[in-house]
Amino acid sequence: MRKNFKLVIRYDGSRYHGWEKKRNLDTIQGKIETVLTRMDGEEVHLIGAGRTDAGVHARAMTANVHLQTFFSTEKIKKYMNTYLPDDIAIVEVKEVSERFHARYHAVGKTYRYTFYDGEDKPVFDRKYVTVTAESPDIDKMREAASLLEGRHDFKSFCGNPKMKKSTVRTVDSIRISRQGDRIHMDFHGDGFLQHMVRILAGTLLEVGVGRRRPEEMPEILAACDRKKAGPTAPPGGLCLMEVEYH
Amino acid sequence: MRKNFKLVIRYDGSRYHGWEKKRNLDTIQGKIETVLTRMDGEEVHLIGAGRTDAGVHARAMTANVHLQTFFSTEKIKKYMNTYLPDDIAIVEVKEVSERFHARYHAVGKTYRYTFYDGEDKPVFDRKYVTVTAESPDIDKMREAASLLEGRHDFKSFCGNPKMKKSTVRTVDSIRISRQGDRIHMDFHGDGFLQHMVRILAGTLLEVGVGRRRPEEMPEILAACDRKKAGPTAPPGGLCLMEVEYH
Repeated sequence: MRKNFKLVIRYDGSRYHGWEKKRNLDTIQGKIETVLTRMDGEEVHLIGAGRTDAGVHARAMTANVHLQTFFSTEKIKKYMNTYLPDDIAIVEVKEVSERFHARYHAVGKTYRYTFYDGEDKPVFDRKYVTVTAESPDIDKMREAASLLEGRHDFKSFCGNPKMKKSTVRTVDSIRISRQGDRIHMDFHGDGFLQHMVRILAGTLLEVGVGRRRPEEMPEILAACDRKKAGPTAPPGGLCLMEVEYH
Repeated sequence: MRKNFKLVIRYDGSRYHGWEKKRNLDTIQGKIETVLTRMDGEEVHLIGAGRTDAGVHARAMTANVHLQTFFSTEKIKKYMNTYLPDDIAIVEVKEVSERFHARYHAVGKTYRYTFYDGEDKPVFDRKYVTVTAESPDIDKMREAASLLEGRHDFKSFCGNPKMKKSTVRTVDSIRISRQGDRIHMDFHGDGFLQHMVRILAGTLLEVGVGRRRPEEMPEILAACDRKKAGPTAPPGGLCLMEVEYH
C-alpha cells in the first residue's frame, strides 16, 4: 500500500537542464527520482507542480510522490537531503491524501524575477540575478505592470509557438520593488505559460529603460503574437517562490 | 612614467586555486594580471595585500599595480570589469603615491568565517558557508575567543610547518554573532599566518560543540604546536572583508 507524500523542494537551477526529467541530462526531477527510487526499492514517479526551465531556481517548488516506504516523513527528508547534491534541498515532507496531485491541485504560484541594477558586478549572487544594462524607471514599469494584471489571453507572452491549449491566465498581481541594488518583480497568478514570467520581465524592463511605453501593453496582449512582446529575460534571475493549494 | 594604482577587488574564490599566480592554474592574481597586461601592453605585476587560499573569498582584497596607461581610473575599472570573469569584480581603482605597497603598508585585516547552523541545506549560498554537524554553544565560543585575543605567538595556529619568520601576531578582536541560521566569526588583526583564521575557526567550533573547553586556549597557544589546535575549517566559509591602511 503506497502512501502519497507532498514535498517542498528548494534548488539552485544553475547546473541543471530544468526540472523535467530528460534522458542523459541532469535535471531536478531526475535527481530526485533517482534518490527516491533507491530509497523505495522500486521505480517512483515524481509529479511536480510545474516545470522550471534550465537555469531557473526555486525556493519552494512542490511535488508529490507515491511511496511504499515505512520511513517517517522526517526520515525520508533526511535520507533525501543526504543523497541529493548540495544544490537541491528537501525543505518539507508531508503525508497527504491519496488523491493529492501537485499539479492539478495547485491554485496559485508566485515567481520572483530579480534584476541587479548596481554599480559593482554582483560577484556572490551572480547566478540569481540579471544585470541591467541601464537603470530602469520603476514607476514606468509599475504603470505597465498594472496594465498586464488580470485575466487575459497571454499568447503574446508564451514561448511555445505550438501551444494548442488555452493561453488565458489570470495574473492577479505584479509587484515591483527596489531593495538596494536589486529590483524585484513578484508575479502572482493561477498559472504561467512557458517562458511567460521571463517574457513579462523582459518586456517590463524595456518599458523601464524607455524602449516601450506602458500604454503599449494592452496592444501587445490584444495582438496574441509573441513577436509583439519583449525579449525573454535570462533564466538565472527567475525563482519559483511558492505554490499554493486550497 | 608609470603610475601606481590601488585596487579593491571582490571575488568568489570557489573555482580558483587561490590568490597567488600559479603556472597553468586559474588564480585571482593570474586572471587580473592577464587583463591588465593586455590593457597596458606590457607585462604588469600585481602586489596583493596578502594571499587567500583556494576556495576562500574576498569582499575587499586590496592590491597595487604600476601601469603606464593613460586611462582614467574610471576607465581602468570599466575595462577590468568587462574583461574579468563574473566571479571577480574591481570595486575601486585609485591613483596612489609611487611608494604605496599593498602588502607592506597594510596595518589591519578583517576576515569573516561563516558557519551555517540551520535545519535546511543552504542551497543558495552553499559555497560561502560551512555547515555545522551539531549546533554550537555561542557563549562557550566567545569565552574561548576572548582568550585568543591579543598579541601571541600563534605558531599552533599556523598551517605552514616550515614557517621560519616570526609567528607572533596581534588579533585584537574576535567577535562571534548569530544571524538567523548563520554564525559569523569576525577576526580583526594586524596580520594572519597561513590557514590561521581557518584553524582558529575550526578550534572555536570544537569548543562550541563541547569537544574542547575554553580554558584550553592558553595551553594551545603556549604549546606552539600545530597538533594541539583544532582542524582547519574548510575554505568556503572564509571571506577577507577589509584591508586597512593608515
